[in-house]
Amino acid sequence: MSLDEFGLIGRYFQRAVLQQAGGHDAVALGIGDDAALLEPSPGCQWVISTDSLVQGVHFPEQYSPDDLGYRALAVAVSDLAAMAARPLGFTLALTLPVIDESWLSAFSEGLARCAVDHRISLIGGDTTRGPLNIGISVHGEVTRGRALRRSGARPGDLLCVGGPLGDGAAGLAVVLGQPLPDALQSAGKDYLHARFWRPRAQCELGLALSGIASGGMDISDGLLQDAGHLAAASGVALHIRSAELPSSPALRCWPPAQQLDWMLRGGDDYVLLFSLPPEHGVLLQDWQQRGWPVSLIGQVEQGSGVWLDGQAVAGDGGYQHFKESADG
Amino acid sequence: MSLDEFGLIGRYFQRAVLQQAGGHDAVALGIGDDAALLEPSPGCQWVISTDSLVQGVHFPEQYSPDDLGYRALAVAVSDLAAMAARPLGFTLALTLPVIDESWLSAFSEGLARCAVDHRISLIGGDTTRGPLNIGISVHGEVTRGRALRRSGARPGDLLCVGGPLGDGAAGLAVVLGQPLPDALQSAGKDYLHARFWRPRAQCELGLALSGIASGGMDISDGLLQDAGHLAAASGVALHIRSAELPSSPALRCWPPAQQLDWMLRGGDDYVLLFSLPPEHGVLLQDWQQRGWPVSLIGQVEQGSGVWLDGQAVAGDGGYQHFKESADG
Repeated sequence: MSLDEFGLIGRYFQRAVLQQAGGHDAVALGIGDDAALLEPSPGCQWVISTDSLVQGVHFPEQYSPDDLGYRALAVAVSDLAAMAARPLGFTLALTLPVIDESWLSAFSEGLARCAVDHRISLIGGDTTRGPLNIGISVHGEVTRGRALRRSGARPGDLLCVGGPLGDGAAGLAVVLGQPLPDALQSAGKDYLHARFWRPRAQCELGLALSGIASGGMDISDGLLQDAGHLAAASGVALHIRSAELPSSPALRCWPPAQQLDWMLRGGDDYVLLFSLPPEHGVLLQDWQQRGWPVSLIGQVEQGSGVWLDGQAVAGDGGYQHFKESADG
Repeated sequence: MSLDEFGLIGRYFQRAVLQQAGGHDAVALGIGDDAALLEPSPGCQWVISTDSLVQGVHFPEQYSPDDLGYRALAVAVSDLAAMAARPLGFTLALTLPVIDESWLSAFSEGLARCAVDHRISLIGGDTTRGPLNIGISVHGEVTRGRALRRSGARPGDLLCVGGPLGDGAAGLAVVLGQPLPDALQSAGKDYLHARFWRPRAQCELGLALSGIASGGMDISDGLLQDAGHLAAASGVALHIRSAELPSSPALRCWPPAQQLDWMLRGGDDYVLLFSLPPEHGVLLQDWQQRGWPVSLIGQVEQGSGVWLDGQAVAGDGGYQHFKESADG
């Protein structure tokens, strides 16, 4: 990597270099050579995903750098969780308009905190001068043939989510300083702020789903839109019951119509959406007892598309959330 | 990857999706799910490098998009060659100010051409609206323990380069329209233009060096500066003989002092620099006969730093080439 090991990344980002990320000595060679070396576990496949974050597109103009560092990595790791992969390492390609030491210190602090929370190690990077752009590639491993694919949902399966919906959109309302319901207390505001800026990728749940769930993905663009991708990739219909959608106490401070809209179409939730063969339905209770807020929200049927309370959902049910797609 | 499989990358970049990249079915799952899956060969380690290119920093304001697509990937693949890795797949994180179909078509053409030349497949990506930024992460594999590291050069080894030096800097002079020597014919100009915009990463040579060379890297920031990194990582002195430095016929159109300066301090050459235990010295002739323009340029000795014709080279011998480091 064209990383100067004596440069920015070496100086600021050592805190994000972890020993034994992934629970074993996966990083054979980290920062400082032309490339990093990872040691896969026997029988595993490599899982790779890349994301880039642009100011004003993926995050507001007003932000704190430590929150940004956390969020940039967490969003990328969520794609590993969505494949049932164990996180191992990540690279950081950082384009910065100026070298601002306090910004770098705070950003790297948030990034390192997220690396520790998700047990993923910084293995390399690249810094360049230019308009702010944060590129993160994440690398993990999964037992061969046990990745959680979008194409595996089958008629008869249970449709489930990994946690409350709508918090990403409500969190964005808090972050942007929009008018908030009177009932929302400061603890609720803090919770939603953290759900937006410091989402926790559901890696443990993803690992538990490996070889158990028939299909799955993470919800980043809103339940309906992402369910549409799962339905299309699997060639099935997904039937969702609105009364079953899980919400947080903080979200329930908003009027019911707003709650429902955000649960269905809000972006940035980063919880898993997965299909579970009915014989594994008993696991839902086990997982809830382990503290994972999984919920049954509907079922997989023959057909196509996404259905809400028996009504077909038109094409793209997605929410125009903060991220404005370049494909739009 | 937050790639919309129906989006830009799916539409324009299919040509860069190769079958049997790396010579086997390494890509178990490509574009379209939350992440890609690669299947490592038994006994291999995974090699990862990331680069980002910013307009006005890594490439001139005036460029043709197909050249840019080629160069962006080739520069990244050179880091795999530098580790003696076999290229397998790459991800593309593309930030674009506007959706310009002719730009995308040309850029993807150049990128795909480079992918074919280096047998590396596009496995995923992400597109975003914002100031132009091209992030590429490359993935390859190397037999366990046989990566070409910077730390392995030993006193007594032969110091070698994989091809002519100084062409990157001379190529930049051509690209920028600077005054050129009268002796430089159009074939020479074309050669240098291609050396700048379409460098060929030395992957085949890298593979041949695996388990043979004691240490190595690619030259991207100029021979003296990069030799300094090799010397420091290995804890040795590198002695270079200026009379042995290989140059192209095109470069030799410039006055000797300019030639030497570019060979020593010019950037963007992307040829390998490696140390060879003396018992393998006979291989140099074999490799030359296979068409690889390797040259012996000096030797590794006890001590530290880089020495040119017996004189110590001061600290950072690097050339302030087109890339202006953010660390500067």
